[in-house]
Amino acid sequence: MLTIWTYDWVPEGPRGHVRDLRLRWACEEAGLDYEVKSVSFQNRGAEHFARQPFGQIPFIEDDGVSVFESGACLLYLAGKSELLMPNDRKGAAETLEWVIAALNSIELVTVPWWFIGLSGEPDNPLQDWTMQRLQHLETVLAGREWLAGGQFTVADILMADVLRVPKVTQAGDFPASAAYVARACARPAFKKAYDGQMAHFAKGDAN
Amino acid sequence: MLTIWTYDWVPEGPRGHVRDLRLRWACEEAGLDYEVKSVSFQNRGAEHFARQPFGQIPFIEDDGVSVFESGACLLYLAGKSELLMPNDRKGAAETLEWVIAALNSIELVTVPWWFIGLSGEPDNPLQDWTMQRLQHLETVLAGREWLAGGQFTVADILMADVLRVPKVTQAGDFPASAAYVARACARPAFKKAYDGQMAHFAKGDAN
Repeated sequence: MLTIWTYDWVPEGPRGHVRDLRLRWACEEAGLDYEVKSVSFQNRGAEHFARQPFGQIPFIEDDGVSVFESGACLLYLAGKSELLMPNDRKGAAETLEWVIAALNSIELVTVPWWFIGLSGEPDNPLQDWTMQRLQHLETVLAGREWLAGGQFTVADILMADVLRVPKVTQAGDFPASAAYVARACARPAFKKAYDGQMAHFAKGDAN
Repeated sequence: MLTIWTYDWVPEGPRGHVRDLRLRWACEEAGLDYEVKSVSFQNRGAEHFARQPFGQIPFIEDDGVSVFESGACLLYLAGKSELLMPNDRKGAAETLEWVIAALNSIELVTVPWWFIGLSGEPDNPLQDWTMQRLQHLETVLAGREWLAGGQFTVADILMADVLRVPKVTQAGDFPASAAYVARACARPAFKKAYDGQMAHFAKGDAN
């Protein structure tokens, strides 16, 4: 059985955006059986750091292998189903490059930009860089339904999850990107993953 | 023939750090034949954006498949040689998770932190976050020679290249990380890759 590890509880703010959602979403898309287990959010011990060296989540266990980093987990899961990544060389290469682009060309700027924006300072030193990257992505998304291989893939799970962070697609004139996020999040597998995460943390409130 | 695409020329500052170096390094480690071709640094046209949607480099072409994003190219090349990634499930999973950790847990903070630091402002809003991530990595590197699979892999190419950016390992008390970078950069394949990039851009000066 594939196990997805997440926190037992998080504050209200990040609920619906904790990154185990990406892995739940992939499993729901591909019809992969999975269970969800928890590590303590408040007390991150040595056993947790042994499996995730930055004290974060998610990480997965599957048939004796463990993997941390949500992007790595998605690529690992993608190897299990053509519903997550085509298995022809070209389609697989496109999925891989767009997974990495989501992590390293978009999220590398949008997460620090978002984090700095939380302070309320009017001048964000990452503003121009972030808008440039989002504009290039907008050009791509204006011309296609999904990023890679002519189908929905793990690259779309990752990119849509990166872009649906509040204010990202609203930070400029990015209608194709906003429509892409809406299209991805309208998928039944997204809703199942989202509801699953919300129920998990609600259970954490009760404990 | 595997082709690595880079710019025809860059200013002095980034030379030795342009990311085609990561791919040259991997090819030199694994003994993969490759050629290097150039796109214009000054004039990035539609043909360039069609192959790299953010107008950056590197991207590769190999037997009819093209891949952009240096991290994606490294994972693609890793599939060609056990000298870059073990082919057992556990070793491959470890390589994958550390490639993504280098891109998304370390470089995601160090590159924006470095970029903001260029302005000379004394208060960097990413300082604490960056130091926390580097401290966790320091703990890992204090206990092992290479990151994944008990051998040198593409994860080390990526992590060492991320950490060798000036001032990163000097930003705190990170002796194991500094020793790791020195160990990686002492490899003959790194020197060949570095010298190759420097010679390429010197040729660009002459044209």
